[in-house]
Amino acid sequence: MNQQPTAPTGTPTSADVARLAGVSRATVSYVLNDTAGGRVGEQTRQRVRAAAEELGYIPHAAARSLRAGHSGIVLLATPEITLGPLFSEFFTELRAGLRDHGYTAVIYGDNSGDGGDRAESAARIWAELRPTAVLAGVGTPLTPRSAELLRRSGTRAVITLADPPVAGVHALVLDQRRIGATAAEHLLARGHRALGVVVPTDRSLDLFSLPRLAGVREAVDGGIRVERLDLDYTEQAAARLAADWPGLGLSALFSYNDEYAMLLMSAFQDAGIGIPDEVALVGADDLMLARLLRPRLTSVQQLLPPGRTLADLIDRLIRHPDTPPEIHDLGTARIAVRDSS
Amino acid sequence: MNQQPTAPTGTPTSADVARLAGVSRATVSYVLNDTAGGRVGEQTRQRVRAAAEELGYIPHAAARSLRAGHSGIVLLATPEITLGPLFSEFFTELRAGLRDHGYTAVIYGDNSGDGGDRAESAARIWAELRPTAVLAGVGTPLTPRSAELLRRSGTRAVITLADPPVAGVHALVLDQRRIGATAAEHLLARGHRALGVVVPTDRSLDLFSLPRLAGVREAVDGGIRVERLDLDYTEQAAARLAADWPGLGLSALFSYNDEYAMLLMSAFQDAGIGIPDEVALVGADDLMLARLLRPRLTSVQQLLPPGRTLADLIDRLIRHPDTPPEIHDLGTARIAVRDSS
Repeated sequence: MNQQPTAPTGTPTSADVARLAGVSRATVSYVLNDTAGGRVGEQTRQRVRAAAEELGYIPHAAARSLRAGHSGIVLLATPEITLGPLFSEFFTELRAGLRDHGYTAVIYGDNSGDGGDRAESAARIWAELRPTAVLAGVGTPLTPRSAELLRRSGTRAVITLADPPVAGVHALVLDQRRIGATAAEHLLARGHRALGVVVPTDRSLDLFSLPRLAGVREAVDGGIRVERLDLDYTEQAAARLAADWPGLGLSALFSYNDEYAMLLMSAFQDAGIGIPDEVALVGADDLMLARLLRPRLTSVQQLLPPGRTLADLIDRLIRHPDTPPEIHDLGTARIAVRDSS
Repeated sequence: MNQQPTAPTGTPTSADVARLAGVSRATVSYVLNDTAGGRVGEQTRQRVRAAAEELGYIPHAAARSLRAGHSGIVLLATPEITLGPLFSEFFTELRAGLRDHGYTAVIYGDNSGDGGDRAESAARIWAELRPTAVLAGVGTPLTPRSAELLRRSGTRAVITLADPPVAGVHALVLDQRRIGATAAEHLLARGHRALGVVVPTDRSLDLFSLPRLAGVREAVDGGIRVERLDLDYTEQAAARLAADWPGLGLSALFSYNDEYAMLLMSAFQDAGIGIPDEVALVGADDLMLARLLRPRLTSVQQLLPPGRTLADLIDRLIRHPDTPPEIHDLGTARIAVRDSS
């Protein structure tokens, strides 16, 4: 390993690099932030890079943002809820696609605390990083005012994943109601006339569960009974529902998602209740477990676009920051019919 | 909504705030970065904050780092693999604990690309954010040289979660070998003398799976047979293993984790192979699904410390940046014995 000269003041600065390379600080900035254009000859560039290497100088992301125009950071703001396996792969592809476009994706937890002007507090915190683009995930607040705050600090594209869309902000909509409606349409086609719909008691899931219930209700006519069933994600709560099931007068159950379906399937089987004969069971997300349960689980798939497609869209919205607000469908719902319904 | 005066040059700067408040830029910085101490009277502070509010000025995270001494950013570097439900709750608690200490946790995907000096490329990218602390997760490269690069750019605490630890860097070790050893000790106690150990073909899991296999081997003596079984996470691969099982001469199986256990349980049951009688099955992570499978799954639990405990540790290492490298156990292994083994 080469001996590295220590910069006189500790952390090396662009002034140190300039001194070592025998150039001005502006030249150092042009070369290391890649904004030199034709201004700086190749020999000088190499001398500057060598000096930076020798001193261990790292250009400041913020400095680059001030001079080069933008930080290259795409901030994905997530709420403090667990996004399951369904989204992990999508996010991985999204980050790879953003990287190919030269951006760096940073996942930023919701750090705004409680109460007061939550949307604005959140936006202020995000804005400190001077992100080039912000995607506010479901459950992370975004308002016209907070979006404006971001834009004024230099953010070029503000995109919300929430539904309903926010005025003046691009939106990627994953309509949760379609998921409930798709489950209901299938059960109706199977002849069921009295459906249960699980609503998790976990309030952080309301943004998914309540629209799904609404979608079921919208998909049925007046002659069909829809019963809301609030459920903790515990074996005890599932056992109680299984014990109550014969008295409910329902023949089918949309269990919110596959994980709740598995919870209930175990409880129904322990109670000797036959699937699908006494309860036609439908989940959602079409996780691997749907194929592994016995009976195999009917599940509503959320077909997300490839993460790279979304990365391309974000890139376009960044490069054309004056684009009027666009609304895009983030995915569609389709049902994988198996033995449980 | 109040009319907001537009800053003359577009994005408002601290100079604009200073002008509007009738103070110096230094005063603006002291007030908004909260480094004023007793220097600035309350009326002036309010005037500065009001001016910043009016202009929509957001202090630059980097500017604060230059003046206040550190950015407050704790960067959690993760590789491009999916960290399952086991870690999600832990990370949520960790982020909350860091927030209570005044830090902002940022999750930063591995953006270094392939080949060459991956550790150093990654560290350069992290350093651009001037993080106060960096936790490099399992699978994210960190070397003595890259750690030095981070420290020279101002990072106060560099912590690795990798095993084996890195010279000169604090380490939080979650010894994967203990997980394999714990599974093996249980099966030996049950009288098994020929054990299969699943190793996922997913190479991104090697950092977990290979030490677990090694842990099994270390826990048994020469009279015990340990067979490595490479497995794709597919129904077809599981069906093949179930079909081959009677001919393998094994009586027990450590299936790497609970998700692979569920995959195999379905395949074994489809093939009419009895659990635990013909295969004693042990998983790991003790997910909810372990309780929901029938038979219920024996699983090795990884007992992580509360996320807040780790946040306190990180805070201490930040406030005492000259602390000699420390090694801490991130967790212990314990087995939850159920009906499958």
